[in-house]
Amino acid sequence: MNGAQALMKTLSDSGVEVCFANPGTSEMQLVAALDEQHGIRAVLGLFEGVVTGAADGYGRMSDKPAATLLHLGPGLANGLANLHNARRALSPIVNIVGDHAVDHIALDAPLTSDIVGVATPMSDWVATSTSASNLAETGAEAVAIACRYPGQIATMIAPGDHAWTDGAVPAAPATPPKVPRVSDEEIEAAAELLLKPGRSALFIGNRALREKALFQAGRVAAATNARLISDTSPARLQRGLGRVAVQRIPYFAESAVDFMKGIEQLVFIGTKPPVSFFAYPNRPSELSPEGAIITRLADERVDAEDTLRRLADTLNAPDNPIHLQTSEELPAVEDGVLDQRSLGIITAQLLPANAIVSDEGVSSGGQVYRYSAGAPKHDWMTITGGAIGQGLPLATGAAIACPNRKVIAIQADGSAMYTVQALWTMARENLDVTVIILKNNSYGILNIELDRVGVTAPGPKALSLLDLTNPVIDWVAMSHSMGVPAQSASTTQEFRTALSAAVAHDGPRLVEAVLA
Amino acid sequence: MNGAQALMKTLSDSGVEVCFANPGTSEMQLVAALDEQHGIRAVLGLFEGVVTGAADGYGRMSDKPAATLLHLGPGLANGLANLHNARRALSPIVNIVGDHAVDHIALDAPLTSDIVGVATPMSDWVATSTSASNLAETGAEAVAIACRYPGQIATMIAPGDHAWTDGAVPAAPATPPKVPRVSDEEIEAAAELLLKPGRSALFIGNRALREKALFQAGRVAAATNARLISDTSPARLQRGLGRVAVQRIPYFAESAVDFMKGIEQLVFIGTKPPVSFFAYPNRPSELSPEGAIITRLADERVDAEDTLRRLADTLNAPDNPIHLQTSEELPAVEDGVLDQRSLGIITAQLLPANAIVSDEGVSSGGQVYRYSAGAPKHDWMTITGGAIGQGLPLATGAAIACPNRKVIAIQADGSAMYTVQALWTMARENLDVTVIILKNNSYGILNIELDRVGVTAPGPKALSLLDLTNPVIDWVAMSHSMGVPAQSASTTQEFRTALSAAVAHDGPRLVEAVLA
Repeated sequence: MNGAQALMKTLSDSGVEVCFANPGTSEMQLVAALDEQHGIRAVLGLFEGVVTGAADGYGRMSDKPAATLLHLGPGLANGLANLHNARRALSPIVNIVGDHAVDHIALDAPLTSDIVGVATPMSDWVATSTSASNLAETGAEAVAIACRYPGQIATMIAPGDHAWTDGAVPAAPATPPKVPRVSDEEIEAAAELLLKPGRSALFIGNRALREKALFQAGRVAAATNARLISDTSPARLQRGLGRVAVQRIPYFAESAVDFMKGIEQLVFIGTKPPVSFFAYPNRPSELSPEGAIITRLADERVDAEDTLRRLADTLNAPDNPIHLQTSEELPAVEDGVLDQRSLGIITAQLLPANAIVSDEGVSSGGQVYRYSAGAPKHDWMTITGGAIGQGLPLATGAAIACPNRKVIAIQADGSAMYTVQALWTMARENLDVTVIILKNNSYGILNIELDRVGVTAPGPKALSLLDLTNPVIDWVAMSHSMGVPAQSASTTQEFRTALSAAVAHDGPRLVEAVLA
Repeated sequence: MNGAQALMKTLSDSGVEVCFANPGTSEMQLVAALDEQHGIRAVLGLFEGVVTGAADGYGRMSDKPAATLLHLGPGLANGLANLHNARRALSPIVNIVGDHAVDHIALDAPLTSDIVGVATPMSDWVATSTSASNLAETGAEAVAIACRYPGQIATMIAPGDHAWTDGAVPAAPATPPKVPRVSDEEIEAAAELLLKPGRSALFIGNRALREKALFQAGRVAAATNARLISDTSPARLQRGLGRVAVQRIPYFAESAVDFMKGIEQLVFIGTKPPVSFFAYPNRPSELSPEGAIITRLADERVDAEDTLRRLADTLNAPDNPIHLQTSEELPAVEDGVLDQRSLGIITAQLLPANAIVSDEGVSSGGQVYRYSAGAPKHDWMTITGGAIGQGLPLATGAAIACPNRKVIAIQADGSAMYTVQALWTMARENLDVTVIILKNNSYGILNIELDRVGVTAPGPKALSLLDLTNPVIDWVAMSHSMGVPAQSASTTQEFRTALSAAVAHDGPRLVEAVLA
């Protein structure tokens, strides 16, 4: 057994079931070793940002690490932006990065680079194997690190000769560390704070946004009348009819400050005090109300559901939560041009039960979120690290994790271009993803931000850098080129027809929604 | 004047004429400042690998640095793979990476990352500005660093508040350092070595591969009967009818060893002793013949043309070089299916005078190189760092640098997918680029390498990771989707017709060459 075989056996024994891959020469032994591990599915991406973004989507939906297989420093570099998002999402991922054989590295061949240096900024842990047998041991450790609650980015570097050298043995499977819990004293202090006379809020994130944890949060609210607030960009929010609803703090700092106004006591579980996405001249970056009493009860690495349940019990909260999402009457949509609002309403109406939404709508997608609050139960994933180009890969990975659920990718056009190669993997794996391209032919958010950072009279050159009209991208042709059937829609009727057909179909479909 | 304005004025004063950009919110002031600098052209790329690869192509063809404008750590990360190639090509580039305002960085907002850490592995120099006025000073220094002969990657980080704060002043323009020269003693020693009775070779790279330097190398050969050899993957080789021809050392190590056999004295100018691209079990990595006397006369940072001229003069070499490329009779191409050979011959026949070739043909493109040796003078650029996804961006930047020359991109299909967004920039800027997609629906090189690393009986899962047939990519639809007219060709007649039309046209065109 060579090092590659020992590694892949160890990963399989440790529960890794999918390897998203874009391999090169230095990973050929690892590719060959995948053949023997029938428990590991191999999924090819034609760009590394697809690979890492898919691993993120898989991790968010399965709470298990996928492996990625990447080609030296440049291959890893291509995957970094979505590893940044994955790290911010606290997703579990095991990256396997091939390197030259050890003796070859010192020769500075063309593809040589500082892989540890490339990996470090977007990884929670980086290690290089030291021998063929150590390759498997490093793999077991990587899985354990990745599984640290709720998830971490573990990157291991595999020199080619460690992969091809015989005499290796598999390592003992990974045992993830126990999930820390808060103390009773901390729970009691937080309960006391929430019962103070002023306006209270629970500010929750990450695993606190799963259905069972939200249920407990709703019980806490029932006992304390606290508001339930989450970060702007949750990794995975379980929402819809019958679930406890949480309010996401708005993206723009001035709206966020208004939104938080009047809160006097704030308890954080699974996340930290909110800050604005960007800084702006003469605007605040920290969004918690000045003077509010802040308690960071449980950070993101502490068991969120346990914290919320014990907090509710300590408060003698009723069994029935408040803030339960009820059904909502949606406004009628008139026949005519498609805009953000009508697209939002129609998409909400057609959202299937148990859907998974990958939301990279950026400036155009907010209305879908707004109108789908009362839709059947679904999972909502957002772009956690602000690195655009996440949406399509994330949808890809989510569909691999949950083959029996419909995935809806709400995707801004500018952002879609960064990792558009994901469409090919959707076609190849026949994934049940409906992609809605929100086509405004613009980096719409930047046209807003230009003014907000103080640029009041942008000239033609500046504006041209935010404009995607020359040429207009033909998303139907783009989608067809990679094997995903597609349709364009510029009216509400066309959009309803196209989206209905896409949702009814089992397999990938793209709808180009031309926004007025 | 704010910091952004002072920076852009300084860059313009320092000779920067193009800014390849994919900006975000934190770069909006820099975008606005571009408006006022009429000497700087702004070119939008829809993915950062396009931006950095275009800057590389521009640098190779103009010997001047372009600026890039990138969005924080993830935006820079997306551009790293082509910065790796650019660094290996010794191209001059000034990367400007926006960051949050200084006070915002400590708050760990979603897009925050260690930008210096991301930049370092693929940069020769990294600096962060310390104030609004220092932004311009840092810019001037970056240009000077980038212009160090023959070129370097200078990356500067621009916090948002330095860009938007008023009261800044432009810095004095950059003055690049002088180019070092070798000593007379070193020249004389090398001349002596080349005159020894055994077989000699000049092994040259980088700026030694420009026409004037090659002329001097041909004079040296005339005086010493030395072979002229270059690296496998030159950044820019000037070749064609009437120029001194150099032999590229083969890619595969065993062929390279054969190729070098019998050489007893080796003089290196502009490069270093060759090593194989990858290591393989039981094969050598170092390719110079064992026992040969090796002199490293001038490394890549030393004036190559000066070294060669003085070496020739010291040898009292004749004024007329040997190894001059003569015209070659090309074999006739029969009507029928298109293969690598017939594609190579037809492309060579149609290569326009003064063309610029961006060669990312990988496993399928070698025949074009072979048959175009005697074509009219042209520049040949290869993938210097082995990070695929360079070809289309490189062609984009070369076309911006040389608007009056035809650029031919010889592009493998698998590699093309990494930075396919370059087609959009070609359409937007109406660049005179003809893209030839070598369509074999495979990572062809990996099918070769699998065997070479010792995987003799790959299974279906392994092979599926090298295969692009499911689905087949429709390159005509892909190209149309981004505004570049395209045609498919699967016979020699179709290919000749399509390529003739593309070459005759002034503007971007794509030919999908379906290889048998």
